[in-house]
Amino acid sequence: MRLHGYFRSSTSYRLRIALNLKGLDYDYVPVNLVKSEQKSAAFTSRNPFASVPLLEAGGRDRAQSMALLEWLDEAYPNSPLLPAGVEDRYTVRELTYAIATEIHAPNNLPVLRYLADPLGHSQDEIAVWYRHWLARTLDPVEARLGQLGTRDFLLDAPGMFETVLLPQVYNARRFDFDFSPMPHIERIEAACLALEPFQRAHPDNQPDNPEKDQTV
Amino acid sequence: MRLHGYFRSSTSYRLRIALNLKGLDYDYVPVNLVKSEQKSAAFTSRNPFASVPLLEAGGRDRAQSMALLEWLDEAYPNSPLLPAGVEDRYTVRELTYAIATEIHAPNNLPVLRYLADPLGHSQDEIAVWYRHWLARTLDPVEARLGQLGTRDFLLDAPGMFETVLLPQVYNARRFDFDFSPMPHIERIEAACLALEPFQRAHPDNQPDNPEKDQTV
Repeated sequence: MRLHGYFRSSTSYRLRIALNLKGLDYDYVPVNLVKSEQKSAAFTSRNPFASVPLLEAGGRDRAQSMALLEWLDEAYPNSPLLPAGVEDRYTVRELTYAIATEIHAPNNLPVLRYLADPLGHSQDEIAVWYRHWLARTLDPVEARLGQLGTRDFLLDAPGMFETVLLPQVYNARRFDFDFSPMPHIERIEAACLALEPFQRAHPDNQPDNPEKDQTV
Repeated sequence: MRLHGYFRSSTSYRLRIALNLKGLDYDYVPVNLVKSEQKSAAFTSRNPFASVPLLEAGGRDRAQSMALLEWLDEAYPNSPLLPAGVEDRYTVRELTYAIATEIHAPNNLPVLRYLADPLGHSQDEIAVWYRHWLARTLDPVEARLGQLGTRDFLLDAPGMFETVLLPQVYNARRFDFDFSPMPHIERIEAACLALEPFQRAHPDNQPDNPEKDQTV
């Protein structure tokens, strides 16, 4: 498999976590979003959405991270991202898709860029926007987690929810989001960051992270 | 089952289509988003996301439309929303989740309201925003549909993709989006609108649509 991604892209980070949790090897192909490499004709001929991640797997170029996570779990059932029971699967997907559909899009790079140009908003206004959409969905996610108990993870093992949560928390910390009222999310974050599949997937440990290059 | 929804909410419309395609009966409980009824304590105690749809089913209050569509297909396998084969399922989910994750959130009512207040944008600027995010994802969806052929639907029968596409197209037409360069999307729209499950789910045919009330 070849994963085309960007170290700081939260959707690329999702895929790295999922592939690591399943023990699937992949080659990493950096796509520099700041240089708009995802808009090149060579790239969009393979992924018309002009987005990362793009996964070459099973003889096919595959886009859209949530479709990829669902596909990985069906094509490679070992180390499942979703639990076996229909009700548990709903529990995981409710919180996972809340983050994937409500937070990700308004806070994704194309939307933030549009707020700056053509709409003319300042970086401070954009940071307020960013934290607004985070809080609007992470508050109810935290409430649901409180109802479900105090395990290390949402269920017994990290899966699709943690795969989608951790990249969002990483981005949120870059925008100085205050997690102090969210002990359940912080507990799950800490439990995941202690695990090798999450550590290896972290943006700090990707070859296209320039800060990594400087310290090598 | 009881479906709490709003006639014009595209995510409520998704659920109505899915329930109709599966032949599942439900009672409809209108939640007036314009009057912010979804933010009442009575409602958020059942759905902390303060969103529609909310489905009472199987002894549980369930939120998040994409998690609901996936759950419905697992709990009620008849008239499947997703095809049987793993590769076909990926084909459907790639396009479905592109719409659900990229278009829906930036064009959802809370974001449009935030653009107006506090950000101070005019209705014209908001309409330009709306059409921008539609085009950015519907263009590649149209491109993928062109690669896949010219059936009435994405695959052989309407399913999860059509369930998510039709409400987005309905909303887009309200914002005068130009579909003339998108013959594949328009072909699928026409095929769906000819079917009873889609007709019965249409916003025009909901009891909480005031224009419907006036004509009764």
